[in-house]
Amino acid sequence: MQEHHVVVVGGGFGGLQTVHGLKGVPTRITLIDRRNHHLFQPLLYQVATTALSTSEIAWPIRHLFRDRPEVSTLLAEVSGIDRTNRTVHLTHGETVSFDTLVLATGARHAYFGNDAWEKHAPGLKTLEDATTIRRRLLLAFERAELEKTEEVKQAYLTFVVIGAGPTGVEMAGMIADLAKKVLPPEFRNIDTRKTRIILVEAGKRVLPAFTEELSEYSKRALEKLGVEVMLGTPVSDCTEEGVKVGDHFIPARTIIWGAGVQASPAAQWLGVKADRAGRTEVGPHLHIPEDPNIFVIGDTASVQQADGKAVPGIAPAAKQQGDHVAKVIKARLTGKAEPAPFKYVHKGNLATIGKRAAVIDFGKIKLKGVIAWWIWGLAHIYFLIGTRSRLAVAWSWLWIYLSGQHSARLITQRDTLKDEAQPVGKTL
Amino acid sequence: MQEHHVVVVGGGFGGLQTVHGLKGVPTRITLIDRRNHHLFQPLLYQVATTALSTSEIAWPIRHLFRDRPEVSTLLAEVSGIDRTNRTVHLTHGETVSFDTLVLATGARHAYFGNDAWEKHAPGLKTLEDATTIRRRLLLAFERAELEKTEEVKQAYLTFVVIGAGPTGVEMAGMIADLAKKVLPPEFRNIDTRKTRIILVEAGKRVLPAFTEELSEYSKRALEKLGVEVMLGTPVSDCTEEGVKVGDHFIPARTIIWGAGVQASPAAQWLGVKADRAGRTEVGPHLHIPEDPNIFVIGDTASVQQADGKAVPGIAPAAKQQGDHVAKVIKARLTGKAEPAPFKYVHKGNLATIGKRAAVIDFGKIKLKGVIAWWIWGLAHIYFLIGTRSRLAVAWSWLWIYLSGQHSARLITQRDTLKDEAQPVGKTL
Repeated sequence: MQEHHVVVVGGGFGGLQTVHGLKGVPTRITLIDRRNHHLFQPLLYQVATTALSTSEIAWPIRHLFRDRPEVSTLLAEVSGIDRTNRTVHLTHGETVSFDTLVLATGARHAYFGNDAWEKHAPGLKTLEDATTIRRRLLLAFERAELEKTEEVKQAYLTFVVIGAGPTGVEMAGMIADLAKKVLPPEFRNIDTRKTRIILVEAGKRVLPAFTEELSEYSKRALEKLGVEVMLGTPVSDCTEEGVKVGDHFIPARTIIWGAGVQASPAAQWLGVKADRAGRTEVGPHLHIPEDPNIFVIGDTASVQQADGKAVPGIAPAAKQQGDHVAKVIKARLTGKAEPAPFKYVHKGNLATIGKRAAVIDFGKIKLKGVIAWWIWGLAHIYFLIGTRSRLAVAWSWLWIYLSGQHSARLITQRDTLKDEAQPVGKTL
Repeated sequence: MQEHHVVVVGGGFGGLQTVHGLKGVPTRITLIDRRNHHLFQPLLYQVATTALSTSEIAWPIRHLFRDRPEVSTLLAEVSGIDRTNRTVHLTHGETVSFDTLVLATGARHAYFGNDAWEKHAPGLKTLEDATTIRRRLLLAFERAELEKTEEVKQAYLTFVVIGAGPTGVEMAGMIADLAKKVLPPEFRNIDTRKTRIILVEAGKRVLPAFTEELSEYSKRALEKLGVEVMLGTPVSDCTEEGVKVGDHFIPARTIIWGAGVQASPAAQWLGVKADRAGRTEVGPHLHIPEDPNIFVIGDTASVQQADGKAVPGIAPAAKQQGDHVAKVIKARLTGKAEPAPFKYVHKGNLATIGKRAAVIDFGKIKLKGVIAWWIWGLAHIYFLIGTRSRLAVAWSWLWIYLSGQHSARLITQRDTLKDEAQPVGKTL
């Protein structure tokens, strides 16, 4: 009999956890990702805001499984899935056949039908997204320094962050810190302390996943850092010149999108039902109703839990789902009883605001301020992969903490600037 | 009387040293660079070969002079110079007038009239060059892993480095180490230890700036690492498929150029004489014969020394020239006697071969092997800018030394792959 073959698509938190959970199970595993690295997305905003460098939060996927000879890693992109013949099709023309398939292909940022905004308001999901935002942030200050027209100068010194979830709040806080603490001594023609950072949110409060009290605290903490918080104000347009909020136009040359996500096309590949956000609907064991051997997990799945509660699109949820799928596969292959249906256990919410404050909601325990910030930092270091990264990130943070200096203030990929919304020569 | 204005173009070793040397001199200084960062080029090959990350060897130029209010930094590109009106023209349309001008604009790699080779054989001068080479190196192994045809697989596992100067030798050594030590446990379909690394050199020996004995030692050390060294073999063609050496064709999907440089167009901007490599000819005080207030230094200058000796295109030479120019300007502005003509003092040559050996030629003292490698490492850490970088690089090297693992194995800028010589879908 040929060995059972599990194909996992996606090397994010869910996919990695599935492979980890299958350790010791008699199966061959192929892990497919279109990137060569696993990315620690919770800290991606720190790359975008120059605090960490790319290699501190990304690891070659195949390196993580070097000691597991039964695991093959493929750098390849999926173009479709043939459920009948049980094969995954790759864009370069090959196919990979599977006995069990786990799709953990995540989500991209979404513009709610306004895809034209993407060019002006990049989102933050990949390392390239982060270095793009980093380049735009730094270039905005450089151009303001050269700019003669006061009005254009001010537009370069205005940063609009759309969406007040954790990404938006964390980005706004870090930009404020960069502009008001790190950069002032370095410019001669502009006062970067006069930078406007505007956090625009359609809903009624920042960090809606937290309690109202912590939301209120976070708003005040942001304002203390110099961030203007606009609530209940949906964005109606994003252009090269700025952001339209209702009837009000904010001239701004740098816009960052943190407002919404769209699932990967897993449901489309499978030809099955998806919810409005494009997520594949899966049952209590996280497989599609049509096929018990095809699992969908993480940001690209919509799980129907027994208690009717929604599973949030965060790393711990994806990891728990990866764990569950590994258990189900293991039970089947070793002839044991199936585990109880998947039940998401919410451990808590964390978010930082700038470099001295955070909010934590562990259910019964709620924390804010400096202590929360330290817990946030230690928790994130703990969840990083490998000793080297933990020490490197701890060291980078310690350096920022002691010196007030950011370590990765690089403008790179300069040649691609021509293709971007704000060409170099245009308004200089 | 208006304050004297020194304009320095180029934030490399020469330009920075000029600005450092002008500390305390009664002058206003404008430092122009088309990048926002100073790059520590001697370690750039370590970024290309995944040992160091970009932010460890690059620093925002304006950060280096944050405590010098008389120094303005401009992120801008020079398009020309008007010697009569004493102005520098920038590509975005503005002009900057100067009293004294220092051009320290460096060099790019050159293909001796074969510019079509660049697409297939990228050189190593900028951070983007390094991440491009890093991406190609890592992708070559990924594609070999997926490839079914044995012949194509072998072409992916063949790396040709052209030019056996320090860059070529150091690149070849690091690639050998990556292929033969770091990667083997991570691939399932290929044996990366069978990778061929070929160092091709038109001249008669590797590292021609060193003594014959050290050249011979370096060649043997490379061969011990598994590098094939081909001497006296000029390259006659570079294509997508490989390299032609004389009449012999080597199928290779990854080619790296380390064979020659061409000076920046400083001479062209000035309308003055250049040598064959495009370098501006300057006199004993490093200014052009036509104008005592226009200095050209570093890789873009050809200095006529009294003893007739050529000045090498290395960092210490550029720094000494920056020092000298600062002294000349200082003497003029403070009414002191001009310093003695510039005389390059050669401190020595250093090069590493892989991760355990180096060669050092300090004139009377010549070293090779492990001890030379430690001196090389300590010297380079010493010459890095700032405590943070020194600790970060020391830490990265220590980690590599102890664990045998490289820390920056990232394939990024994936979207731009389509424009490159070896498109993703083509041979997979």
